Amino acid sequence: MTALSAAALIAIDWGTTSFRAWALDAQGQVLRSTSGDQGILSVRDGDFEASLEQALTRLDDRTIAIQVPLIAAGMITSRNGWVETPYLPLPLDAAALAGALSPHQTSRGRRIHFVTGASSDMDGDFPDVMRGEETEVIGQVASDQAGQRQTAGQRLFVLPGTHSKWVRVTAGKITAFQTCMTGEAFAVLRDHSILGRLMDAGAQTGADPGAAFERGLAAGRGEGALMARAFSARSLALAGSLAPGEIADYLSGLLIGDEIRAGLAQGMGLAGGADQAVTIIGRGDLAERYARAFAAFGIAAAIAPQGMNRRGLFEIATKAGLIG
Amino acid sequence: MTALSAAALIAIDWGTTSFRAWALDAQGQVLRSTSGDQGILSVRDGDFEASLEQALTRLDDRTIAIQVPLIAAGMITSRNGWVETPYLPLPLDAAALAGALSPHQTSRGRRIHFVTGASSDMDGDFPDVMRGEETEVIGQVASDQAGQRQTAGQRLFVLPGTHSKWVRVTAGKITAFQTCMTGEAFAVLRDHSILGRLMDAGAQTGADPGAAFERGLAAGRGEGALMARAFSARSLALAGSLAPGEIADYLSGLLIGDEIRAGLAQGMGLAGGADQAVTIIGRGDLAERYARAFAAFGIAAAIAPQGMNRRGLFEIATKAGLIG
Repeated sequence: MTALSAAALIAIDWGTTSFRAWALDAQGQVLRSTSGDQGILSVRDGDFEASLEQALTRLDDRTIAIQVPLIAAGMITSRNGWVETPYLPLPLDAAALAGALSPHQTSRGRRIHFVTGASSDMDGDFPDVMRGEETEVIGQVASDQAGQRQTAGQRLFVLPGTHSKWVRVTAGKITAFQTCMTGEAFAVLRDHSILGRLMDAGAQTGADPGAAFERGLAAGRGEGALMARAFSARSLALAGSLAPGEIADYLSGLLIGDEIRAGLAQGMGLAGGADQAVTIIGRGDLAERYARAFAAFGIAAAIAPQGMNRRGLFEIATKAGLIG
Repeated sequence: MTALSAAALIAIDWGTTSFRAWALDAQGQVLRSTSGDQGILSVRDGDFEASLEQALTRLDDRTIAIQVPLIAAGMITSRNGWVETPYLPLPLDAAALAGALSPHQTSRGRRIHFVTGASSDMDGDFPDVMRGEETEVIGQVASDQAGQRQTAGQRLFVLPGTHSKWVRVTAGKITAFQTCMTGEAFAVLRDHSILGRLMDAGAQTGADPGAAFERGLAAGRGEGALMARAFSARSLALAGSLAPGEIADYLSGLLIGDEIRAGLAQGMGLAGGADQAVTIIGRGDLAERYARAFAAFGIAAAIAPQGMNRRGLFEIATKAGLIG
């Protein structure tokens, strides 16, 4: 356990349905990590501390020393989380998030620092909020700065998911973001609308979504109300032009295509910027789908290396002077 | 029962969840009517004939004479209905539908004539289908012709509902139509997505949707991906700008607003036509909402008198020579 006695920080990404924690050394290197499904929705009786202690046990055969600071980001700071924290308005960077940490002492005497979420345009017609994604973007920005990559000008990050986020970074600060319910819309239309009825019962969206996804993308780029175009996921099947096993991929392409079409039309981070590339923060099949979709729009999209949430947590902790 | 001995036609509107039937005289006047929830989904063991006979009993204390012709339209001709009939391609009018009737003799010897649905662009990227709505529009056109109203040029009919239909009529023929899943999208987002979570548990969309509906309409007219704008139904509530009891009306306005924005942008029936008005075929609160929404776009929308499905069925039966 010599290595773990060197732990300088416990970084925690605590979401609605997932939990990840890392023991980091003073340089941010991972000593040990743990992950599980103990998202905030599955914490019993609101006993977040017990859930945390149980996870810390998995990080070490003994226990993590009581004086090692902890930092946590994600939905853990939402109304249904451990400590609800107010959103931080834009623009913001690692230093701003460090300055807005909410410290909390557990009954065992551990000191946990909560990273709050970000808000945008709260007095406007389209206010927006996020909790957790800001930390992933901050991690990516820190990673780029450490790698001495170009960080001036505008950058666009896209974080696919149930609620995908488009995040614009200008000169190292998050200056705008927008939520699009693409993943959730896909799920509810597939599971609860007429569009799911003709789908193969066992049909899953595959690793290579193929031609049906591309067709959906083309439909997503088209004109017309989204809910008129979405009906084509049924009518094409009725017309015999789409097979039951293709409907889900088609619908996925249509919704992602509409998200990207509209996002680009609004110029989220791309309008006039020197950097015309998009960075996707995500993994697996969904990140690949978004990369393919951006390519269909003629835009190069790179998928960021994994671990940006951990990188962001370390960066914020460093800025807050928690380490060493 | 003297009056009913004069029945010249039994007209039936047989949908997925509803059933209406009218005994009509040779001039199309209603002698008696019945309605119920015996839509095709609730017909037991596929025994449509038993369901029909039971309804006919309600039309008369005795039975409707076996030789009185019947005509039926709606989802009864779909795959899950009584007799599946092929869609009729556009353009079409009452005479075309009359020429495409599918006659069926029941085991008791009744002759029932099924009106088939319409299809559009079946080889294209956005094929579309409807069953039942074509008959309502035909009824409206016949009513206008009988009233010697202007029927030349283009007309636009909008039929709000689970799957709303926009139907363009040119010189008395249906020349284009489009389905928009507005009603279904509203229901699945309210009942199954995060947007429903902050709604009042008992909150219903009211008879006077009021200011929240108007705000939703404005958001529906805006830029951006629909699923990005839809998230504002949550974020405005988080920002304290929308009350829990207002979220459903706001979301309703947003989806209807997007439908109308996109429909008008595509010029469905309005582009360059002499007649710049829209006729809404529907009833109650939903028809009123659409009328208010069109007004917000600066377009006069009249709600058609009730009974257009019956009127259409009579018109088609007349053209088919079933009467007298």
